[in-house]
Amino acid sequence: MERTFNFSAGPGVLPLEVLQEARDEMLCFKDAGASVMEISHRSSQYTAVVESARSLFRELLGLGPDWHILFLQGGASLQFYQAPLNYLTGQKCADYLVTGAWAEGAYEEAQQIGTAHIAASSADKNFSYIPAEKDWKISAGSAYLHVTSNNTIYGTQLQHDPSVSVPMICDASSDFLSRPIEMDKYGLMYAGAQKNIGPAGVTVALIRPDFLDRIPGGLPTMLDYKTHASKLFHTPPVFAVYIVEKVLRWIKSKGGLKAIKVMNDHKAGLLYHAIDKTDFYTGVAAKDSRSNMNVTYRLPAEELEELFVKGASAAGMKSLKGHRSAGGIRASIYNACPLEAVESLVAYMADFEAKHG
Amino acid sequence: MERTFNFSAGPGVLPLEVLQEARDEMLCFKDAGASVMEISHRSSQYTAVVESARSLFRELLGLGPDWHILFLQGGASLQFYQAPLNYLTGQKCADYLVTGAWAEGAYEEAQQIGTAHIAASSADKNFSYIPAEKDWKISAGSAYLHVTSNNTIYGTQLQHDPSVSVPMICDASSDFLSRPIEMDKYGLMYAGAQKNIGPAGVTVALIRPDFLDRIPGGLPTMLDYKTHASKLFHTPPVFAVYIVEKVLRWIKSKGGLKAIKVMNDHKAGLLYHAIDKTDFYTGVAAKDSRSNMNVTYRLPAEELEELFVKGASAAGMKSLKGHRSAGGIRASIYNACPLEAVESLVAYMADFEAKHG
Repeated sequence: MERTFNFSAGPGVLPLEVLQEARDEMLCFKDAGASVMEISHRSSQYTAVVESARSLFRELLGLGPDWHILFLQGGASLQFYQAPLNYLTGQKCADYLVTGAWAEGAYEEAQQIGTAHIAASSADKNFSYIPAEKDWKISAGSAYLHVTSNNTIYGTQLQHDPSVSVPMICDASSDFLSRPIEMDKYGLMYAGAQKNIGPAGVTVALIRPDFLDRIPGGLPTMLDYKTHASKLFHTPPVFAVYIVEKVLRWIKSKGGLKAIKVMNDHKAGLLYHAIDKTDFYTGVAAKDSRSNMNVTYRLPAEELEELFVKGASAAGMKSLKGHRSAGGIRASIYNACPLEAVESLVAYMADFEAKHG
Repeated sequence: MERTFNFSAGPGVLPLEVLQEARDEMLCFKDAGASVMEISHRSSQYTAVVESARSLFRELLGLGPDWHILFLQGGASLQFYQAPLNYLTGQKCADYLVTGAWAEGAYEEAQQIGTAHIAASSADKNFSYIPAEKDWKISAGSAYLHVTSNNTIYGTQLQHDPSVSVPMICDASSDFLSRPIEMDKYGLMYAGAQKNIGPAGVTVALIRPDFLDRIPGGLPTMLDYKTHASKLFHTPPVFAVYIVEKVLRWIKSKGGLKAIKVMNDHKAGLLYHAIDKTDFYTGVAAKDSRSNMNVTYRLPAEELEELFVKGASAAGMKSLKGHRSAGGIRASIYNACPLEAVESLVAYMADFEAKHG
């Protein structure tokens, strides 16, 4: 069996070099005499992995030494609850930018804890655009604005880090480390690893030092960010963190986030150009809101879309079917998606149109 | 580098065959054309893994088709909160058997939610024994009794499934699937995978059908067992579940839980015999409470213990140092620990005593 071109929306493609390293170390990790899965989370070998991962996060994102870098579990879905539990507890209010089903989930979960307002929403057009920043409403006394940097299902993305009057909490799961980030605008950024930075099973949370200090006492131990910021409280998802560390090294080897952005812009540009140059394909997202991670488009008929996905799969291009709630085609082209995969898809699109257009 | 004999208390040793399979599938999992880490959690390939794992749990534990088998995240530590959140919410009370630091953690977390009573405790003798079952106090109207089946730090273990008047919730993290279990006595059994059944990063929760029905409405989505029992709600820790499935197949290939118990009894018997036949070594746990998973013992002096651990490590027997809060020696001999490792340790103990006794 050969590796195929993998356009999965997540869990998504990982760098081949990372998988090769993990394969080669599977029975014996460095001098441990065992797999990294079989050693204590307090061992020197695993401690070195975590320290390297933290140091790479600081380097890639330009984070000061006081930033907290946590490796949590439960994905973004648990963060939808954990973030307001830490920051909305005690009669507070916050604002939510509702740009998709996941953003909506975060907004709904927050209402269990405090007062959550909608800063702006694009539900009126099935989340096909990002509301203009000038129209976002920030409430008086708002503890934070929650944003979703990229909306996997619809193929929209914040085009830059917003400038608002309150700290932002950001669900960055689906475009994390795909471009440079102005981290000081965020109090908390969290990301499930399984799109751009690793396998499912670890959630990275980056917390600005002053933002950690705002957390009240008396929270459930495991859901209190302070628990994890202060020490290695319990057994972390060792293997997932180990893969993340390798992905961070891979990102650095590619030149860091500026270079990664150039690669991502180029890949997405090729695809959007292929969509825009013909009437056969129609982009789903508004042009000023397009994602560089998930490229969504339609064909003239659902039958053609089905045929398109089947033919692509037969030609070794997998997982191009749109999300079950959105339909159409979705090409997820995360950091580790090679240029050749995109070029192959663009060529296939031209062929397909020639045959069926 | 060679693989060593690994006595780590957890994350602990995995079957070599499991690691070899994972290595061989690292770049291409079956017909996926990608690693299992890179494919959708709704793909046919991953769905087959989960279904196989569930089916093996049912087969190995004799669970009826209605039992809920959940793959959660956050380890036992999150269950300390999640279990009472589901079962103690609403003015209820429950009882806790306090047999170690982790059991104590569970008891403390429960008090955030409802009334938790201590059914019995062995704190008076540093948790070196399991209180006699006849002395456990079950409160009137108790929603459940929480027990910890094996206490990793001290080397104690429930010798059989208790018979009490209320459903039990059991933290089985450190002896899960090491012997047959009378599952019908339990309403909920949870286990972090990283001792006997897989890598860190997945928590298995088994819930009796009638016990699921007792959960009230209005809980936070991700912490509500019903969310996960009803559907695949969010991205699970794919790779960890994939390894668990392989471990379950390995257990089955060894003859199932009865056969595994025979192997574990034999391994533990060899070690306890080596301890008991001389005054040089002293077992820590009371004889009627001894664990077949974690064998704890002392030498006549701490300097000797240090020398013992160093010498063992040099001879390829790793991670024999006792828990930092307990000192002494701890040999963790989980399911996947080969007989040869225990035989090697027993021989080393005799040699060491001959030199230093």
